Amino acid sequence: MSTNSGTLWGLGVGPGDPELMTLKAVRLLQASPVVAYFCRRGGSGQARAIAETHIPASATELALTYPVTTELPHDSPEYRERIEAFFDQAAEEVAAHLAAGRDVAALNEGDPFYYGSFMHLQLRLQGRHPVAVVPGVTSTQAAAAGLPRPLVMRDDALHVIPGTLPTERLRAALTEGDAVAIMKVGTNLPRIAGLLDELDLTSRAWYVESASGAGERILPLAEVAREKAPYFSQILIPGEGVRR
Amino acid sequence: MSTNSGTLWGLGVGPGDPELMTLKAVRLLQASPVVAYFCRRGGSGQARAIAETHIPASATELALTYPVTTELPHDSPEYRERIEAFFDQAAEEVAAHLAAGRDVAALNEGDPFYYGSFMHLQLRLQGRHPVAVVPGVTSTQAAAAGLPRPLVMRDDALHVIPGTLPTERLRAALTEGDAVAIMKVGTNLPRIAGLLDELDLTSRAWYVESASGAGERILPLAEVAREKAPYFSQILIPGEGVRR
Repeated sequence: MSTNSGTLWGLGVGPGDPELMTLKAVRLLQASPVVAYFCRRGGSGQARAIAETHIPASATELALTYPVTTELPHDSPEYRERIEAFFDQAAEEVAAHLAAGRDVAALNEGDPFYYGSFMHLQLRLQGRHPVAVVPGVTSTQAAAAGLPRPLVMRDDALHVIPGTLPTERLRAALTEGDAVAIMKVGTNLPRIAGLLDELDLTSRAWYVESASGAGERILPLAEVAREKAPYFSQILIPGEGVRR
Repeated sequence: MSTNSGTLWGLGVGPGDPELMTLKAVRLLQASPVVAYFCRRGGSGQARAIAETHIPASATELALTYPVTTELPHDSPEYRERIEAFFDQAAEEVAAHLAAGRDVAALNEGDPFYYGSFMHLQLRLQGRHPVAVVPGVTSTQAAAAGLPRPLVMRDDALHVIPGTLPTERLRAALTEGDAVAIMKVGTNLPRIAGLLDELDLTSRAWYVESASGAGERILPLAEVAREKAPYFSQILIPGEGVRR
């Protein structure tokens, strides 16, 4: 590693409410010569929107814009190849600034190491340049803050599982966890809700959309229409405070 | 609920580094007429130490001091009775301020709903007074920030389990989770390390003490002496980025 390299900062900017940014993320961002973030064409992304007021006017902004891939199924080799090539190129754009001695603040919704898009840069640049992570408030803890009881307490085990998992994996996680957070519910909502019915867990389950953000919705799962939900919606089942 | 009641704020102050407090926790704390925190006799507690510079000079501080129970085994009915009576009394001290119309900021290390001591107040006062939670950065995400790879990515399932669980529960969680965070390792370190050896997971495991705090230690588990560890130490096994 060059001793003159800039540092790649993975900044967790929290779940949506700009006030849930940490003092550390704000301080580092305000001093950043280069600010990078992933976004879709025609937008500048949720992470940038959260952090916007702290981006210095003098900073170079590096918008890493996802390629348009609507013509490709997401499980096709062509899609994977296209998207991996995009991440490779994004990492090289970031690396060029680091090699020139400029620190880069990469913005990440929630926490960079909790299902964060930062992984695409980190896995490619770790070892080549100094990399440091500033943890953030996760969407899971932001969602839990709106519930009438703790997510986990005492000896509760918490299982965090993507809603994209096959039903049998979900069933195992739901059966064995004392508390459960199901991420990325999205189009899987009807399937997951049916499974919760079967396991007699619906009465303990909460549906959360846009935790802490402008469109926040938190309500008992029993009151939610069982249709397609936004990709980043969650279902939480708080623990009951097991003592062992 | 009285409409003149103050609000009980559960403020997550983050894992140890005072800079990992959120802007929201700082703002609310700076405006708090009453600041409450749990602590041991002779100390003022870790949560207060983290938040100290933001406590207004004019605030009434409510130190909720744990009773000395060294003569009682922690699994005895006498211990439980003593400690529950203490929490009941602590909640009533807080409730007196709320009933008088004063907001109370209850400080909580990490996140109030993630194994937080705030539960003892929340479970007793929810429904009697307005209660609101400000989520914080968890010790788990602070620990993960020091690792050379993400804790969870893609379709990884994360199992968070207290190290106090029986070995068979730990074994199940370790076998089925793609990523695992073992909390409250403490005196269980030798037992847990032995189990990780048996499951061939030691080479993927990291030991973390005082994440983000002054005495932070992050090192491969293989390099750690297998003796009693501090109560709040953790063992993390990052996921490998499963795709399903």
